[in-house]
Amino acid sequence: VDVQLRRRLNGPPVASVGIVGGGQLARMMQPPAVALGIELMVLIEDPTSGAGPVITRHIVGPPDSPEALRALAEATDVVTVDHEVLDLGLMATLETEGVVLRPGAATLAVAADKLAQKQFFVGAGLPTPDFIEVRSPADLAARPWPGFVLKSATGGYDGRGVWVRPSPTEAAAVLAWAAGAGVRLLAEEAVSPEMELAVVLARSPAGEMVVYEPVQTIQGDGMCRAVVAPASIPASFAALARTLGKQVAERLDVAGTMAVEMFLVDGEVLVNEIAPRPHNSGHHTIDACSTSQFENHLRAVLDLPLGDPGLRSPAAMVNLVGSRSGVDPRDRLAQGLAADPTARIHLYAKAPRPERKVGHVTVCDDDPRRALDRAWKVAEIMGGEVKR
Amino acid sequence: VDVQLRRRLNGPPVASVGIVGGGQLARMMQPPAVALGIELMVLIEDPTSGAGPVITRHIVGPPDSPEALRALAEATDVVTVDHEVLDLGLMATLETEGVVLRPGAATLAVAADKLAQKQFFVGAGLPTPDFIEVRSPADLAARPWPGFVLKSATGGYDGRGVWVRPSPTEAAAVLAWAAGAGVRLLAEEAVSPEMELAVVLARSPAGEMVVYEPVQTIQGDGMCRAVVAPASIPASFAALARTLGKQVAERLDVAGTMAVEMFLVDGEVLVNEIAPRPHNSGHHTIDACSTSQFENHLRAVLDLPLGDPGLRSPAAMVNLVGSRSGVDPRDRLAQGLAADPTARIHLYAKAPRPERKVGHVTVCDDDPRRALDRAWKVAEIMGGEVKR
Repeated sequence: VDVQLRRRLNGPPVASVGIVGGGQLARMMQPPAVALGIELMVLIEDPTSGAGPVITRHIVGPPDSPEALRALAEATDVVTVDHEVLDLGLMATLETEGVVLRPGAATLAVAADKLAQKQFFVGAGLPTPDFIEVRSPADLAARPWPGFVLKSATGGYDGRGVWVRPSPTEAAAVLAWAAGAGVRLLAEEAVSPEMELAVVLARSPAGEMVVYEPVQTIQGDGMCRAVVAPASIPASFAALARTLGKQVAERLDVAGTMAVEMFLVDGEVLVNEIAPRPHNSGHHTIDACSTSQFENHLRAVLDLPLGDPGLRSPAAMVNLVGSRSGVDPRDRLAQGLAADPTARIHLYAKAPRPERKVGHVTVCDDDPRRALDRAWKVAEIMGGEVKR
Repeated sequence: VDVQLRRRLNGPPVASVGIVGGGQLARMMQPPAVALGIELMVLIEDPTSGAGPVITRHIVGPPDSPEALRALAEATDVVTVDHEVLDLGLMATLETEGVVLRPGAATLAVAADKLAQKQFFVGAGLPTPDFIEVRSPADLAARPWPGFVLKSATGGYDGRGVWVRPSPTEAAAVLAWAAGAGVRLLAEEAVSPEMELAVVLARSPAGEMVVYEPVQTIQGDGMCRAVVAPASIPASFAALARTLGKQVAERLDVAGTMAVEMFLVDGEVLVNEIAPRPHNSGHHTIDACSTSQFENHLRAVLDLPLGDPGLRSPAAMVNLVGSRSGVDPRDRLAQGLAADPTARIHLYAKAPRPERKVGHVTVCDDDPRRALDRAWKVAEIMGGEVKR
């Protein structure tokens, strides 16, 4: 493991990982880093929230600062990311300069652009909902399906940048905005999935791969609200979902944890979107699996052997989301803990702005439906906006 | 919960805990603090090892500095400890001044002195091996049992300050040393236990208490080498051990996690020693229980509701101990991870001096004996001194 060898020349034997972005994903990498003695360093804009209060070493700055990124790379063995809103050209340049970037710039370039993702799926022969690039109102008018979803290719997350079955007026407004902002748009055939699925996996540069059990994701307002593990689907679908996940990871040469979101629709499994990093659909792995997605991410980017992904118990995860009521889940910690002595509460040190994920609750229970019910209950008590 | 209310007046709703001492126990409090959004601050002598690299806020100084302790108390809601080598008079003074100290100074005073512990056990009617205070060679000569263990009342840990069945020459040397150093000595009847047990529990100031399953501890050279959970003993003994643990905690008015070490000998359960803090005999709870001893310690000292202590799976824990070979387990992380994909490795960022605990390995397995075998195997691969 070359990164360890480098470190050992000038100090104790510590492998270190630099993280671009200091949100909850970076924050949740810290517990496994503590366990394994891995040193983390974040490039963070606001060191008072997310990963800031819990990771000793940080560089304060934006994720597209060449100086800050070079300082992060200089101080660590490998650089990874906690989001995809990056200067992709700069990341590619750094990689050319010798920065060990995992996932690599080519993977990030596909993941950061939904149009590139769709083109990659088609090129790789992976089933995915039909789509077109939308450059003009004429493109949209010529689409071959009535119901559609309009998406900005870049910059969207948690429902932002996605318009489901927009009205003609709304679609026209989006096109005008996109033309002005220089953002590419795509339209996808709207599908009505029987279930939304996600497969989380981790892959190391050495090519080792571990795949977590497929989960059901429950969406609301374009945002993942809850996850049930395992997804209650026939074994053949679960096997297919895992195979699709593995194909994506191999073809994209992913290093680290990756999530592949899918639709189960009309007896088919379609690939929807990918994220080459720990993902909301894998938060339950902290409490429900032998090795969490965060630990396996660190192990993978350092090219260490990966940990067993097995589900120790069925489980459900519900996000704590900021609500318009102004209730802060941090003020309801005692009530949440009292409500269910086996519930696992995770808070991200984030102010609860509306529609912002500020924490999550995981419950392990032999009955995954009961787990979901129990997790919703704790989430409701803690005052996040819950949409069952 | 008063501590939360105080915090909320001048910032985001964060409960904070100050820890006197920055070793591995403080280090292992950080993962649950990250999850629950609790802020930690350590008073630490060497910020480069143990908790130092993973807890953002620290005060560098000795644990008996009045200025440093007052600064720690001022910056946090409640003060707790990671060891008992303290200035007990100073801790009592701070408590009188209004510092919220959990466990309290009276509890610490008993726990820090093995003679005070024994006198407490007798006063509380708790069964314990017979003992005498040893002030002179005559006291020792007059002991009513042939085999005995000589102990310094204060300052010992991990086998230091304990002499099992010493020769007359060795005993004389210990007495001379103790007289010169002003250290009190006690002699205990040497027992030959069928098994050594430990009960870990957590108790909050509100009086809530949770008790973990009794475990078997495996000692070597006076140090805990391994733990098997649950202890393979009849249910009646397990119930008795839990009851004894609860009695100790109630009578000592413990706040936080506490370990009670016991002997199973001649069909009796005898109380041996106590530690009012997270303890080596509870490290397996991180990976094997719904709520770890470290999380319940934080919840207890903050008077938050306690978490379920249930064992999710039988498990075994083996310590990684510095050896004379000079092998550093941190250099063998990749080999350890490769050896067993479900093994949970914990490193403490400590240099591997001989007989120093620098990490531990936990394996969950339906068969606790197989768990122990697997954990030893990983520990051996990582090069710590292993004594099966």
